[in-house]
Amino acid sequence: MTPTIQRFPKNPILTPADVKASHPDMQVELLLNPGAFRYNGRIGLLVRVAERPVQEPDWISVPLLDPDAEGGMRILRIRKDDPDLDLAPGETRGFDYKGRGYLTTLSHLRLAWSDDGFHFTPDPRPTFVGQGAHEAFGVEDCRVEFFDERYWLAYSTASEFGVVAGLASTADWRAFNRHGVIFASHNKDVAFFPQKIGGAYTAFHRPSGLGPGGHFIWLARSPDMIHWGAHTCLATTRRGHWDSERIGAGAAPIKTDRGWLAIYHGADCNGRYCLGALLLDLNDPTRVLARSDEPLMTPETDYECKGFYGNTVFTNGHVTDGDRLFLYYGAADSVVCGAELSIRDILSTL
Amino acid sequence: MTPTIQRFPKNPILTPADVKASHPDMQVELLLNPGAFRYNGRIGLLVRVAERPVQEPDWISVPLLDPDAEGGMRILRIRKDDPDLDLAPGETRGFDYKGRGYLTTLSHLRLAWSDDGFHFTPDPRPTFVGQGAHEAFGVEDCRVEFFDERYWLAYSTASEFGVVAGLASTADWRAFNRHGVIFASHNKDVAFFPQKIGGAYTAFHRPSGLGPGGHFIWLARSPDMIHWGAHTCLATTRRGHWDSERIGAGAAPIKTDRGWLAIYHGADCNGRYCLGALLLDLNDPTRVLARSDEPLMTPETDYECKGFYGNTVFTNGHVTDGDRLFLYYGAADSVVCGAELSIRDILSTL
Repeated sequence: MTPTIQRFPKNPILTPADVKASHPDMQVELLLNPGAFRYNGRIGLLVRVAERPVQEPDWISVPLLDPDAEGGMRILRIRKDDPDLDLAPGETRGFDYKGRGYLTTLSHLRLAWSDDGFHFTPDPRPTFVGQGAHEAFGVEDCRVEFFDERYWLAYSTASEFGVVAGLASTADWRAFNRHGVIFASHNKDVAFFPQKIGGAYTAFHRPSGLGPGGHFIWLARSPDMIHWGAHTCLATTRRGHWDSERIGAGAAPIKTDRGWLAIYHGADCNGRYCLGALLLDLNDPTRVLARSDEPLMTPETDYECKGFYGNTVFTNGHVTDGDRLFLYYGAADSVVCGAELSIRDILSTL
Repeated sequence: MTPTIQRFPKNPILTPADVKASHPDMQVELLLNPGAFRYNGRIGLLVRVAERPVQEPDWISVPLLDPDAEGGMRILRIRKDDPDLDLAPGETRGFDYKGRGYLTTLSHLRLAWSDDGFHFTPDPRPTFVGQGAHEAFGVEDCRVEFFDERYWLAYSTASEFGVVAGLASTADWRAFNRHGVIFASHNKDVAFFPQKIGGAYTAFHRPSGLGPGGHFIWLARSPDMIHWGAHTCLATTRRGHWDSERIGAGAAPIKTDRGWLAIYHGADCNGRYCLGALLLDLNDPTRVLARSDEPLMTPETDYECKGFYGNTVFTNGHVTDGDRLFLYYGAADSVVCGAELSIRDILSTL
């Protein structure tokens, strides 16, 4: 059983052409995976904007944040025939150089605002930019959740030290407090529950490792949002299924009568990213009550199937209005889209 | 400059033949990497004992902890020609089966006691055994540190969900409290500082990931030992050095006038594991004051060079007596050894 999905008629709602580059030497390559929230009667998206310098033939140029450099950024420029360069075949997101990994683009987060949830106007300047040694390769894929009178931003960030989860908060979308790295390398897809459970803050996260294990969704608990423990694996990939290779949480789970409804992404052995759902016990979210056998949403349209990383729908932001779920998502790692679903409809599939 | 190292004349001080198997169907394959501590005037080692079932030709048998099975353990038995079995060439510590990773042995922790620090008598039974879903592949490499009137045990543990760091504590070496998973997959080599710094507990840990990053030593801070945050990368591997591929903390750092002295292990591109040292600022241990250019200790003797994983010295336990450092270590992932060093001597190399 598949729920009805109404993709926004104006999809994609934001493309790289809609966003001004952060610097005259840079160009916006991709828009990805927005966080979503309500603020002062409007809907905000916190979009990941991936940029890189204009590329020259025979060279790869990647930008690195560097507080010691002029303008806070320097360009690593490598000849494509440099023997220390290792461009893995088929891999476009990163490469190895002198035994260290790098990303091909540098991302920042940019606000875009809407009165109706369908039409968004991006801010002319970056909102949240990588800062410090652990964020030198930029900030990505931010979940936004409001509680305790603040918006909490959980974002992925990378550097030569690895891919980690950073935490920041803001009350007014102007001043941001940074709370450091909350999950160390390699970790992504952190999303907070909208309220404490059993006296503790609760988060999804997605550690990735070597040897036994995989790209699974974990839960952790915290007394203060800054320090996390009681890690437990919530859900693993499923061999032969649509989510056989890697899974990770979407945005905050939605509280329903039947339990916490969590939208998550899953990738299969062909690298196709789909969306599905988990239903978790309200009082003990480590208990999985139901899980999508079939994906809720698969890449189908042209803008989802073709792009920088095709066959991909990926969400980390939504807002609700009663039973209506406005799901914002990245399509093909290239553009930002929206879709409307019914929460009741999703629950009926579980 | 290399410090004088006096290997114990009776090395190895413990071998698999010294330890009784935990179960009649099992045999002790290897002794590894002991934690070390003082208790009631004696020196204790908490040794990792790696066991597996007696192997039959054409089959691989691995034990898995399973609370639902008789005796709390079941045997996974796989024909060596099973097409779902993936034995990576040269890799003896684990394998893949049906897309999931497994370890070839199951480890528990076993106490061994000594009055003089040189001669140890192992307990006849396991001291600390894996428990619960995240410890199904056993418990390994435990650091032991005493503060707040308790011994704190940070151990590696593995399951189909990944390799994680578990925390337990004991006051009497009889009753143990478990405090859950403190660092999620993939994480090893957790060691606590012996006192709070700036009001927070402080730990080394070693996350391993994919993409950018590597096997580096990180620091984290905690208000309560259970929940950890403020992760920061302390030291990375060094290309072309003895510690070019992976590094990880030893036991708790030693407080000296010049700073925190931390012994760590490093592996090079040939998989040789050596020991070196870091010197950290007393008040801000994220500041590295000095680091060993050359290893303090390299595998040299027969028992260090030959074994299950040869060319390996690995420490996660020591005790001190004034300037004397009694370093306990695993040699070739097969036997337990000891060596005596002078702390002043080590500092003079830094």
